[in-house]
Amino acid sequence: KINPQRLWDSLMETAQIGGTPKGGIKRLTLTDEDRRVRDWFKAECEALGCTVTVDEVGNMFAVRPGRRADLAPIAMGSHLDTQPTGGKFDGVLGVLGALEAMRTMHDMGYETNAPVEIVNWANEEGSRFAPAMLASGVYAGVFTPEYAYSREDRQGLKYGDELERIGYRGPEKAGAHKFGAMFELHIEQGPILENEGRMIGVVQGVQGMRWYEVTVAGQDAHTGATPMYLRRNALLGAARVIDRIDAIAHEHAPNAVGTVGLIENRPNSRNVIPGEVFFCVDLRHPDDAVLDVMEGKLRRALDEILTPLKLTFEEKRIWHSPAVRFAPDLIDCVRIGTERAGFESRDMVSGAGHDAAYVARVAPTTMIFVPCAGGISHNEAESTTFEECAAGAQVLLEAVLEYDRR
Amino acid sequence: KINPQRLWDSLMETAQIGGTPKGGIKRLTLTDEDRRVRDWFKAECEALGCTVTVDEVGNMFAVRPGRRADLAPIAMGSHLDTQPTGGKFDGVLGVLGALEAMRTMHDMGYETNAPVEIVNWANEEGSRFAPAMLASGVYAGVFTPEYAYSREDRQGLKYGDELERIGYRGPEKAGAHKFGAMFELHIEQGPILENEGRMIGVVQGVQGMRWYEVTVAGQDAHTGATPMYLRRNALLGAARVIDRIDAIAHEHAPNAVGTVGLIENRPNSRNVIPGEVFFCVDLRHPDDAVLDVMEGKLRRALDEILTPLKLTFEEKRIWHSPAVRFAPDLIDCVRIGTERAGFESRDMVSGAGHDAAYVARVAPTTMIFVPCAGGISHNEAESTTFEECAAGAQVLLEAVLEYDRR
Ligand SMILES: NC(=O)NCCC(=O)O
Ligand SMILES: NC(=O)NCCC(=O)O
Repeated sequence: KINPQRLWDSLMETAQIGGTPKGGIKRLTLTDEDRRVRDWFKAECEALGCTVTVDEVGNMFAVRPGRRADLAPIAMGSHLDTQPTGGKFDGVLGVLGALEAMRTMHDMGYETNAPVEIVNWANEEGSRFAPAMLASGVYAGVFTPEYAYSREDRQGLKYGDELERIGYRGPEKAGAHKFGAMFELHIEQGPILENEGRMIGVVQGVQGMRWYEVTVAGQDAHTGATPMYLRRNALLGAARVIDRIDAIAHEHAPNAVGTVGLIENRPNSRNVIPGEVFFCVDLRHPDDAVLDVMEGKLRRALDEILTPLKLTFEEKRIWHSPAVRFAPDLIDCVRIGTERAGFESRDMVSGAGHDAAYVARVAPTTMIFVPCAGGISHNEAESTTFEECAAGAQVLLEAVLEYDRR
Repeated sequence: KINPQRLWDSLMETAQIGGTPKGGIKRLTLTDEDRRVRDWFKAECEALGCTVTVDEVGNMFAVRPGRRADLAPIAMGSHLDTQPTGGKFDGVLGVLGALEAMRTMHDMGYETNAPVEIVNWANEEGSRFAPAMLASGVYAGVFTPEYAYSREDRQGLKYGDELERIGYRGPEKAGAHKFGAMFELHIEQGPILENEGRMIGVVQGVQGMRWYEVTVAGQDAHTGATPMYLRRNALLGAARVIDRIDAIAHEHAPNAVGTVGLIENRPNSRNVIPGEVFFCVDLRHPDDAVLDVMEGKLRRALDEILTPLKLTFEEKRIWHSPAVRFAPDLIDCVRIGTERAGFESRDMVSGAGHDAAYVARVAPTTMIFVPCAGGISHNEAESTTFEECAAGAQVLLEAVLEYDRR
């Protein structure tokens, strides 16, 4: 049995690192806050006798030896970075839940057959450096380390330079640190478990997701002296595209989602008709074929909306993560672990992207979900209860031990 | 006859102060660039024997004595601040054209009856500190100095503190420095003069203008895990309002204009449904009664669009400047000056706001327009030719001398 209070205390203690007045966390990837929580994590793992290594893109691995050195380690992991107005649980619960499971084994002197380890994946959120799941993507061979290093934040700072700056560019080749399986505990970030009153989501896979960057170009001009017919208003064009993206998602209800989360308007002055707008589009669906259709509609919409407004545009798909199915034998371990711990569960597909989606390409992988209030995530008010956090960590431990016994 | 080359050289010299790579000027109000151009202006005026004073909100007055001390001065003026991606002529031509007229009188030893002066009005653009024409507004008694001091830029810096910081908070009470008339030379910022091949616009007045600030509140949430039906997407609401504002302006064609120039999206992360959007609305029409109708439509649109999206909003009209008619006898001086200088002209109403619009409340005032290429302004590519600048300064000088003779 894990220690729920110790888990909660660790969650609340680390929530101070980048803690916001509204009770959330702002701990963007490779900032000083990220460095501080990494330092904390490293020290706690070393206190349990783990060996902590860091790979070339900043992923951290804390290994506890097992009885048999010939067996590949069993990993548990998630991420410690957050959104700019992130909550206290997204990602963090997966790492600290794993730490609690590890502490429990340590306290009990429990010896596993295989080594067991905790992974803190770098830049899962993709908010500061797009795309999301960048460093687990490098680990899985989806991206090169050079691609990761070259990613820039909106200020033009590079991933590689910032990684170096906080001292977490490790010597290990990404992907060289192998394990035999990975379990990722995470909050659901959606409303289903709460609505149905169930504690555990047995995650079957992750839906497909695609990100696009669009720059719309018009002409800066005076808001007062420029007649309507002469305008080339880039923000008007972007506004109509934003509306259309919402409509495209509704056309593929109930499973499609489509969103513009980031927009930059230039020159952004009260009395200047906007001459340039940059924005990012996020489209998702569990079926990649439907995503193809949505993408086609998006591209047609850009042309049909912007061209008549005398606007030009550049559009680029900067990321796609195809739909993923998790490993049946690991899913089975989660199901058995849930039963053993005595919780109600349901099968589900993740709407959010997770490091597990990339890791699944190179190792058997699955996930465990717990509820979050109102399904609200990427929000400072994100809330998962003491009991729910404890349940998640308990099921994680049971699933890992079940896998280790097999 | 003014010296066109000297005028052009001064325009190009000061265009370096805040000069942008694209050939425009970024010289926001009360920045170090604003301070530098003010220092330059002061030195040049003093070199002509003028007395330069500064009032409590940062307006600068450079007075050249006339033959008769009992006559109220005749003012020429405009502004030296610019938009973030401003051009080289908006405002600047009015001040440097006045300086050229003053230099011409000085070189010729021409003695006017009344004193003649140049005014550099502070914060005309309203881009850094809303509203526009702030310090001429205080001069005219529309705003209090305290109101001006309290205005904040988007970083929260206050007008009063920044004025103090650059050393241009003068001892003179705003409005105490009286004059008998003001002529403002400016670029048209619209396409009419160029389209009709005329050199001079004889400005009859300024259209009415209103600014609104709107904050739309929804809920930050995960773009991937939040089903469409659960969303409260503030950016979607703002996008629909932006589209509707464009439609409202078209409904009152051909004279109405309506624009959203500034928008701030929060938290502005690629995978977060926007929970809050702030934007500014600019509505204008030559007839205040039509503006009332447009304002009513805007307010209805906010409610009708945002409420069904489960969004709340706050809306505030932060500024209105009613339609203005200029002084007939000054308009007459401009007409005579134009004929004397031998240029084709047409009467027109200004679509842009100008310091003249507020000054007209406390002194007879009018304006002179010259063309700008394509009607493009508030744009680094803003372009008025050597000949057009010279023509404007010549007509300004002729109009002032005509008024002085009367
Ligand atoms: N779990 C999570 O919030 N991941 C961020 C990547 C995404 O799904 O947008
Ligand atoms: N002339 C000019 O560009 N004024 C700025 C104020 C406005 O019209 O928005």
